[in-house]
Amino acid sequence: MLEQKSKEEVRRLKKELKVKEQRLKKSEQELAYLQGSYGRLNLKAEILQVVSRAINSAYFDLGKLLEFIMDLGLRVVRVEAGSLLLLDEESKELRFSVAKGERGDQVKKFKLKLGEGIAGWVAKTGKPEVVLDVNKSPHFKREISRLIGFPTYSVLCVPLKVRKKIIGVIEMINKKGKKPFSKEDKELLTVLANQAAIALENAELFRKAEEKIRDLTTLSEVSTLIASSLDENIVLENIMNLTTQLMKAEGSSLMLINEKTGNLEFVVTKGEKKEEVKKVKLKLGEGIAGWVAKEGQPLLIPDAYKDPRFSPKVDKDTGFKTKSILCVPLEVKDKVIGVAEVLNRLDGKPFEERDVELFSSFANQMAVAIENAKLYRDLRELFLSTVKSLAAAIDAKSPYTRKHSEKVAEYALAIAKELKLSSEEQEIVHLSGLLHDVGKIGIDEKLLNKQGRLTDEEYAQIKEHPAIGAEIIEPIGPLKAIIPGVRSHQERYDGRGYPDGLAGEKIPLTARILAVADTFDAMTSDRPYRDKFADEIAQREIENCAGTQFDPQVARAFLRAYKKGEVVKKYVING
Amino acid sequence: MLEQKSKEEVRRLKKELKVKEQRLKKSEQELAYLQGSYGRLNLKAEILQVVSRAINSAYFDLGKLLEFIMDLGLRVVRVEAGSLLLLDEESKELRFSVAKGERGDQVKKFKLKLGEGIAGWVAKTGKPEVVLDVNKSPHFKREISRLIGFPTYSVLCVPLKVRKKIIGVIEMINKKGKKPFSKEDKELLTVLANQAAIALENAELFRKAEEKIRDLTTLSEVSTLIASSLDENIVLENIMNLTTQLMKAEGSSLMLINEKTGNLEFVVTKGEKKEEVKKVKLKLGEGIAGWVAKEGQPLLIPDAYKDPRFSPKVDKDTGFKTKSILCVPLEVKDKVIGVAEVLNRLDGKPFEERDVELFSSFANQMAVAIENAKLYRDLRELFLSTVKSLAAAIDAKSPYTRKHSEKVAEYALAIAKELKLSSEEQEIVHLSGLLHDVGKIGIDEKLLNKQGRLTDEEYAQIKEHPAIGAEIIEPIGPLKAIIPGVRSHQERYDGRGYPDGLAGEKIPLTARILAVADTFDAMTSDRPYRDKFADEIAQREIENCAGTQFDPQVARAFLRAYKKGEVVKKYVING
Repeated sequence: MLEQKSKEEVRRLKKELKVKEQRLKKSEQELAYLQGSYGRLNLKAEILQVVSRAINSAYFDLGKLLEFIMDLGLRVVRVEAGSLLLLDEESKELRFSVAKGERGDQVKKFKLKLGEGIAGWVAKTGKPEVVLDVNKSPHFKREISRLIGFPTYSVLCVPLKVRKKIIGVIEMINKKGKKPFSKEDKELLTVLANQAAIALENAELFRKAEEKIRDLTTLSEVSTLIASSLDENIVLENIMNLTTQLMKAEGSSLMLINEKTGNLEFVVTKGEKKEEVKKVKLKLGEGIAGWVAKEGQPLLIPDAYKDPRFSPKVDKDTGFKTKSILCVPLEVKDKVIGVAEVLNRLDGKPFEERDVELFSSFANQMAVAIENAKLYRDLRELFLSTVKSLAAAIDAKSPYTRKHSEKVAEYALAIAKELKLSSEEQEIVHLSGLLHDVGKIGIDEKLLNKQGRLTDEEYAQIKEHPAIGAEIIEPIGPLKAIIPGVRSHQERYDGRGYPDGLAGEKIPLTARILAVADTFDAMTSDRPYRDKFADEIAQREIENCAGTQFDPQVARAFLRAYKKGEVVKKYVING
Repeated sequence: MLEQKSKEEVRRLKKELKVKEQRLKKSEQELAYLQGSYGRLNLKAEILQVVSRAINSAYFDLGKLLEFIMDLGLRVVRVEAGSLLLLDEESKELRFSVAKGERGDQVKKFKLKLGEGIAGWVAKTGKPEVVLDVNKSPHFKREISRLIGFPTYSVLCVPLKVRKKIIGVIEMINKKGKKPFSKEDKELLTVLANQAAIALENAELFRKAEEKIRDLTTLSEVSTLIASSLDENIVLENIMNLTTQLMKAEGSSLMLINEKTGNLEFVVTKGEKKEEVKKVKLKLGEGIAGWVAKEGQPLLIPDAYKDPRFSPKVDKDTGFKTKSILCVPLEVKDKVIGVAEVLNRLDGKPFEERDVELFSSFANQMAVAIENAKLYRDLRELFLSTVKSLAAAIDAKSPYTRKHSEKVAEYALAIAKELKLSSEEQEIVHLSGLLHDVGKIGIDEKLLNKQGRLTDEEYAQIKEHPAIGAEIIEPIGPLKAIIPGVRSHQERYDGRGYPDGLAGEKIPLTARILAVADTFDAMTSDRPYRDKFADEIAQREIENCAGTQFDPQVARAFLRAYKKGEVVKKYVING
């Protein structure tokens, strides 16, 4: 009975023990499984957190970020080599942005097309690939592996995707210890890739924004620079220097429509072969520039030789090799006045939309600056030609002094240049020459044209003209600087001139210059009482009178300028 | 023996069973614990992933992102109400950006200082707070809870931190089911907050970049606009309209240094009370503007009344309430020519560093545009005063015609205005008036001044002057438009004038206008052979000759202009 009881107890206990053992086994299995899952999940959480922190700590530095992502990938999946390839949107090629492992540096020179190799295939399909044996993969591209001398056995490759757009791939090669890639490897690398893709896209967006800020800041600076002159030559020179700088281009040119011929003419051009380019003229509608001028639309040509509008004429003439062209119209009040063109981006890539926007904005500023300089030049020319016409009308009171003022102004300008006076001083000398005889408005024509000797009274009347001239100029504030020349152009270096009997350096320099110019023109023109002298005689006379009638330095400057052919440019004397 | 054996077996089994039971218990405990941890870790991983995806899907839209983060927070910690507060860097105040729950809308009007309330405390210390009973917290701010009628029991608040910088807090109120907040709640909300802070900071960085792009794009547009005129009035008008637009300010003004007095004078001003402001003049160094002009440095004043340099004089005179001021110097070739100022940002905030940069860039463009307009005006004035002086010199050949040309030009301009001719036509009329007698350069003074009757021959000589004048003007291309007036100003409406005997509308309009102006001045001036007429008689004569000597429309326009006092402005006739 007791024994029986004991036996039952043993059986019960054994049964219970078996149940407990089974439960324990199950529990421990579950625990082991969960521990594994927990470990994986923990790694996943770590990846997520670390990548987020990476976005943060690397700010928006793409280079740092790429390195960081790759290093993290190598921690997650232990492999012999790994690389990160980014897809170039324009060329649709995958480029090695980071490559780690023994031959990492050498692989960087390769590019893959979409669909080419395992990486290209993943980039094309957007689906991860686990290749346990590359010999069995239809996509494996043995070439690269062979060329860099790095034997490849197995590959794990996952896409970098953002909003369904594939921006690249992460590729892991040869799991360490010749193990096969696991499902877990694929899962973790995918988590990393998803996070990384977002970070990369953000970095790219931010890079683009910063690039645009840089562009616009440069635009603002160069716009201020080109607007800050009304001198056409300086404006055009500035435009060309700043265009290549702003647009980062090999060459640039500016063509304006010639209002008479209607043709586009090169005005300035920068880059190699600039002189040859300048000779080219294009009809409206001819070539890229002609098309832009006719249509009033910007034109972006990624590859010039593939565009039917491209005329290889300029290239042929100049030996320049045009690749990419961006050409924009210059418009003033909705009228096209010309085009601006940049050729070949310095980085070798074709121009893109962003460049069109930037260059078009700059073109607006160019057009305004060119138009302003033109208006200023027109007004200046109006002023000068009015002064010339009125001076000529005064000269015309006597047939013997026709064009006298204009000629004196030219000769005086040549002397001023020879004396290396500043351009402002040259301008004063020129204007003083044009107006030196303005006082003759009030002198009787009969006196000016009298054939015989003048009476003392008549001569006294004529001698009034420099003072009258100075009085006429006097109310014109900005012409104050020309009064000394007008008033004193009849003074002599030895003090025997009029109206004030000044001598030597007391005579204003402009007046000493005008004295030489005036006398030379008088001697080489007919007079009522004598025929004109030959140039050689006039020159000798100037030479002889240096130190008495004339300032010797000025006289010598005149003779030097004459020898160089600088004096007689417009008017052929004695001819 | 057997029994003894059985008993031992039972003891052994029991012992074994106990060991197994203990192991099982331990294993199951571990399993339960791990399951809990796994659940939490899983939620954490989900938060990490979801927030990352959120950054992605919400792009950089701050509003969307804030809503998303809050919603996710409410999923993680189940509470009655929750809010997200962001720290304003300038004011150091926490503002409710999102508030969810029953009284969410009402809480939004409140602001918290750093250290104020539990949220303010967390923002100050950067450490999370779990408050199980708000009555026991020294930081709880009962007021808000009472004011919006929402009883608060418990609070969980965590900081939003990026690179040690606190940008705000997430605050959760009253855990559902009156449960206390757990360690897990705090941990998960912290994970969320860390991720969210990165996302928010990125969104903010991106927002700033986009704002800057917008600013610079507007800058480029307005710069082109202000550069696109050389007319000083248009330039200044454009500057003022575009300044408030670009800078988003309540008012703006432009002050230029008067070269004579050295004072700063308001040139244009925009905003309320603009007329009053214009009267104010400032010495160099006086007030904000005076300081900027003197130092050549920009000045940003967040609160004008707290700055000792601020002079409340203008505010007193105008009734304007200046809050924030940004004032920048206008420089041309390193010389300060004036200052530009904007007052009170439209959004009520003070101006900031970013505004200084933008406004300084614009100031460079303004200075260039103002300088160009000034150079153009100076050249125009030089041209006009030269023409006036030469015309006056011609008039001076006869004492009877002193200032004749200038007066005729003024009268003719008054008629042109009365006839509502365009400003270009008015300019032509004015210039034609100045030069109408230019042909008299070639006429003998004695004839012009002869006291008795002229012989037929002498009269014929005088009658040549309009044709000679036209010939003098002819070579001046841009003055082509004034030739008709100069040549035909002696024609009569009835065809009995000279040199071409034109009649009626065949006589160019400018010439018909000059005929009236010329005759009026001749009648109201002394002549060798008669004294001048009284104005009334001259007017009656013009009236009488309408239709014979004069175009009746032009004559009537003259009489109307005379009655309005528009004819005699500069020259007091008969006085």
